Order: sequence, then C-alpha cells, then structure tokens
Amino acid sequence: MSDPTRRGAYSEAGVDIDAQDEALAEVKDLARGTFTPGVLTEIGGFGGLFRPDLRGMDEPVLVASADGVGTKLMVARKARRYDTVGEDLVNHCVNDILVQGARPLFFMDYVGAGVLEPDAVVELVRGVARGCRGNGCALLGGETAEMPGFYQPEDYELVGFIVGMVDRPRLLDGSRVVPGDLLLGLPSSGLHTNGYSLARRILFEHSGLGVDDLLPAPDGGDPGPEITVGEELLKVHRSYLDAVGPLLDEPALHGLAHITGGGLTDNLPRTLAEGTAAEIDPTTWTVPPVFRLLQQRGAVDPEEMFRVFNLGIGMVLVVEADGGLEILERLERQGHGPRIIGRVIEGRRQVVYQPGCEAAF
Amino acid sequence: MSDPTRRGAYSEAGVDIDAQDEALAEVKDLARGTFTPGVLTEIGGFGGLFRPDLRGMDEPVLVASADGVGTKLMVARKARRYDTVGEDLVNHCVNDILVQGARPLFFMDYVGAGVLEPDAVVELVRGVARGCRGNGCALLGGETAEMPGFYQPEDYELVGFIVGMVDRPRLLDGSRVVPGDLLLGLPSSGLHTNGYSLARRILFEHSGLGVDDLLPAPDGGDPGPEITVGEELLKVHRSYLDAVGPLLDEPALHGLAHITGGGLTDNLPRTLAEGTAAEIDPTTWTVPPVFRLLQQRGAVDPEEMFRVFNLGIGMVLVVEADGGLEILERLERQGHGPRIIGRVIEGRRQVVYQPGCEAAF
Repeated sequence: MSDPTRRGAYSEAGVDIDAQDEALAEVKDLARGTFTPGVLTEIGGFGGLFRPDLRGMDEPVLVASADGVGTKLMVARKARRYDTVGEDLVNHCVNDILVQGARPLFFMDYVGAGVLEPDAVVELVRGVARGCRGNGCALLGGETAEMPGFYQPEDYELVGFIVGMVDRPRLLDGSRVVPGDLLLGLPSSGLHTNGYSLARRILFEHSGLGVDDLLPAPDGGDPGPEITVGEELLKVHRSYLDAVGPLLDEPALHGLAHITGGGLTDNLPRTLAEGTAAEIDPTTWTVPPVFRLLQQRGAVDPEEMFRVFNLGIGMVLVVEADGGLEILERLERQGHGPRIIGRVIEGRRQVVYQPGCEAAF
Repeated sequence: MSDPTRRGAYSEAGVDIDAQDEALAEVKDLARGTFTPGVLTEIGGFGGLFRPDLRGMDEPVLVASADGVGTKLMVARKARRYDTVGEDLVNHCVNDILVQGARPLFFMDYVGAGVLEPDAVVELVRGVARGCRGNGCALLGGETAEMPGFYQPEDYELVGFIVGMVDRPRLLDGSRVVPGDLLLGLPSSGLHTNGYSLARRILFEHSGLGVDDLLPAPDGGDPGPEITVGEELLKVHRSYLDAVGPLLDEPALHGLAHITGGGLTDNLPRTLAEGTAAEIDPTTWTVPPVFRLLQQRGAVDPEEMFRVFNLGIGMVLVVEADGGLEILERLERQGHGPRIIGRVIEGRRQVVYQPGCEAAF
C-alpha cells in the first residue's frame, strides 16, 4: 500500500494517533511538493501512478535501483539529525541510474522503526522530498512500517527505490569505451554513503570521538576546515545529475561510474568495455583530510582505502581523448571541479594505480 | 547499486567471504530464473534495465508500490523459516497494483541485517524469486545491506518495490462504481501480511503459545484443520493475479480492493466513487477459525477486527449487477471460491455492516 496520500502500518501503531495524523498530513504535503507533470495526482488508490513522457523516444528503457543508507543512519541517530539521510538516499539512487544514461522519473521510500516517532518520520521524509525536488524526481509514494521490538529505540531504517528512463540508443553500457579515453573525476562531498561501518569503528570506537567533537586533522598536509565529526560524516551524498545530465547526449561521453561501495577499484570496471582497463594516477587529486585521517587512525592498507571509500572522487566520466577536453572545460566553467585522474588502457576490466595506491596518502 | 548481477554492502561484511560469494552466486541464479523478455540481461551495470512492451497501448501508465512484510518477519525468525516471507511480499505488492488494473513488470528487494547469514539471505531471496515467477514478474535487482549493531541477531528486514503498467483507459479508479453494483469477495489464505503485531501479542504473549504448538480451536463453530501456530501465521499471502488478471478488460468489473491493513473498513472505500458506499453482510462468509480465535483470546472488539484483519476476504471485486454474475460464475468454475458479500449503495465512501460486525463471530 504505497501512494502519496496513504501510508501503511499506522493502524497498529502504539503511539499518539493525533500526532501521527499530523505527521502523515505533513508527509503528504512533502510528497505533493515533489510532484512532476507525470504524476497522476487526481487518482488516489493503492499504488502510485506515473505517466512517462515517451515523446521522441525510439525504445524507452526503464532503469531501476534499490538502495539503503547503511550505517550512516547510526551517525544520524547519534547526531539526532534525521533530515539529511533522505537526501543522501535519493542522490545515491539518482547517480546509480544516471551512470547508465537514465534521468529519474519517480522515487519511493520505506521507513521502518520500532516505534514511529512522528517528528523523526517527518524529518526523514523531509530529506527524501528535498532530494527528490533537487533532482526533478517525484516522490510517488512510500511505506511507513512500525515494527515494535524489531528496531531499537530511535533507530530508523530508510530504503529507497528509484525508476528512471533512457532511450535505448542513448544507454551507457561501456561499449563505447576505448583505450586512450580520458577519465574525468568529479569531487565527492565526503564519504557519501559508503564505508560507514569502518569509519564509525575507527572514529567512535578506536579514537573515542563523539559526533560533537572537532574532527582531528590528519598528520601532514592540509588539515582542512574546522568541522565536527558529525558534520563531516553527515555531509550529503552529492547528486551528479546537474553536472552530468546535460552531457548525456554528447557523443564524446563514453561511460560513467558512480563511486560507491567498492571504491574506484570495484566501480570503474563496471563501465569498462572488454579488453580495456583504467589507469588511475592517485596524485592527480588531493585526498580530503577525513580519508587521510581514517587511513592513519585505522592504519588501513592504502589498497583497502581505494576499495572502501571514494577518497574524494564521487563520479568518473570516461570521455573521448579529444572531444573530452571540451567536456572538461564545460564542467570547469560550471564550477563542478573536474580533474583528469587517469586514462583507459588495454587490459582486463581492472583498475591499475600508477604510481601505487600509497601515493595518495 | 542494484542489478541482478551485483548486490551491495558485502564489501564491509564481517562474515565468511567465500560463503557470501556462494550465496551471492545463488541469489544471482534465483534472480535470473525470474527474468522475462523485458529484462535487458546482456547489460550489467548499476541499475536494472527493463524494456516495457508498449504495443497496443494508448497511454502507458506506470503503477508502483513499496511495501514490507511487517512483523510477520518475527514469526519467520521464531519458526526459523525464511523462505516464505519473500513470496508474501511479492504477492502483496502484486495485489496492490492489480487493484488499479496494472500487471506487474518487475520487482526489487532489499534485505537488511546486522550480520548477513548467507543461508538465510538465500532463503529470503528464494521466496522473493518464487513469488516473482508465480506472477510473471522479473526480479530485476536488489540490495543486501549488512548493518552491524543495527539489527538484532537473526532478524532480517525485507522490503519490496514493484512496478507494473496499465493502459490509462483501463485504469481502475473507482469512477465506474455505481449503487447496485455487487461486491464479490475472494478468500484470503490467512492473515496475509496484516495484523501481526496484535496477533503475536494475543497468541505468543497473552496465550503463551509457541510456533510449534497446535493452534487451539476457537469456542463454537468449525475448529478447522489441525495446524501449528507457526504454520497458520506463515501461510503465504495470496496473489489474486491469476483470478483477477483475466477480468481486467471486462467492462462489468468496476473496481477492486486489496484487503490489507485497515481491513474491509478502510480498504473498500478506496475503490468507491463519490456518493457511493459499501454495504457488507458479514454472515455471507465464514470467518476462518484463526480470526475467531484471535477475537476471543484478545477480546477484540468486532469492529476493530474488521479494521485490523482481512477476516477471510483478501480481495473484493466491485462488479455490475447483471454482468457481474457471469464473472462470479467464471471465478467459481475456476475454483477461486468467490462469494457475494454485499453491494454498493448510496453514501459517503464508507462501509456499512448489516447486520453488525458482531454477526461475523
């Protein structure tokens, strides 16, 4: 049962019904605020209805992705800050379908908790709605499930599901990638939504830090601006739709990779054609202080760092050697801070680091 | 990150990687076993790709729904039986979009756990895959998230998302419902996926029963067949696609309601046109023993019973008075066990019980 005007599981709720009705009304308003022309709002019902605009499409392909926020949720709870993880979730999902050439149509969320604290639910959905608006993606519906005894107090599970569309001839599947192509990296805002189990272990357990403590500077290099541990860890996962969306029809764009769990090492190969590999020069960008701190405090092997964290690169564009430079300039002009971080070589769909992963730290 | 050939969050796993790789391979095979012609399998990548068949459609409308299994999951854990809740989830979602006239295209799942026990994950996905195959719905992808400390040992969260399609002229939105229409009820298999928090409280806490105990017979009336509490509570949520799907193009079919959380009382109005109401005669079907037991053991108010449980009716068809009888006969011939449980009258989109809710018990 999931449409913008009705969410499930309240019927069995153990908490204040009036507060819930209020929250429910607010959640509805938040969802309505994201509606795009494709949403058939006049019709309520059991499912959410969306009419895709198929004009000018030869062969519409739906691209769908499901994701969670992982243990970044536990940082949100520690910081008692529930309005950002929803935006993380939407942006993560948007990036996941963007790399195949798809633009988002609609999003659905699921919120699970032991006891639904109405204010927290509203904050969670507020973040989801903000993320949807920012990406022109309709929050078509959602489910809110109260499961007494299943979740710990103040813990909220947040899961998202996105559906986008791409015309098949424009599908990005790596087949256009050839040796000689350039790899352009776009900066991440922070950890995005990956590596939190390890980061939490290192910062909270091993280093005994709290969310309100100042993030210590790593030894050597730029200490970065003053920021608390909570602020750093809750930085919102960046959406690359505004940067990359306008480039999707450019013949010079050969591939895209969203750098999430698995880092550059595991995600880049997913956009490489057979017979190609990616050569990355880790000295072409400065790994942000938080990652250097995590590497030092956790004594994490540099190769492992490249598998668990994005290390400052959240999206990689594979572009044609010549035409790609124009894309680079465009991204620079628009302030997206692109960097040439490597190139495509012949190989077996793997990533080669020259000179070595340790050079990044 | 969610496509059939890759699932997230394993990178940070704290458990046996080989066992996980094996499980992952099995999960992939299970997903592939559900693929329909619309799935673009040759392409891996970040999102799942589906090409809808738009032939013969005037105005394709996507219908999407998100749902969980709720605390039925806690019964599954008690019974150490993880392979059925996935089927519950798919069937629930299929029914939710079916009532708007949509047939399923694809499904995505999310499995969350503190520690992913590979065998349990495989069992959960096995159930999801079985449900997808049974409904001709592709399991297009999923996410498996390990969140240490977030979930209790052996607890698994299971969330599903479905996308279906309907041609707009065939959309069921209740607008065709008129006074005089008949209400046909189709039997549920049991509690389906609603009322579990209350049912668990009554059976496990108040009555001190265990999943392996025989379900006691209610006082008076048919005691029903011998069955354990666990078997009864884990009966699979029925999909009504096979019964109702062939009727979606019948002009005599005016509306459909999936009886989930909220029962007949809250779900029927969602398929009623303005100016109409539903008059239900609770004596026209026999409420199954498990519901009568719950009502007696929990001393639950009969009106509440109609709000929390389906009471043996999982799907309601609103059909034209004359043409509807032919539909009734068809459903009978096919062994779907339909029953005329009431009719549409003039009113304010509410449900009226004649004679009274208590007549059901």
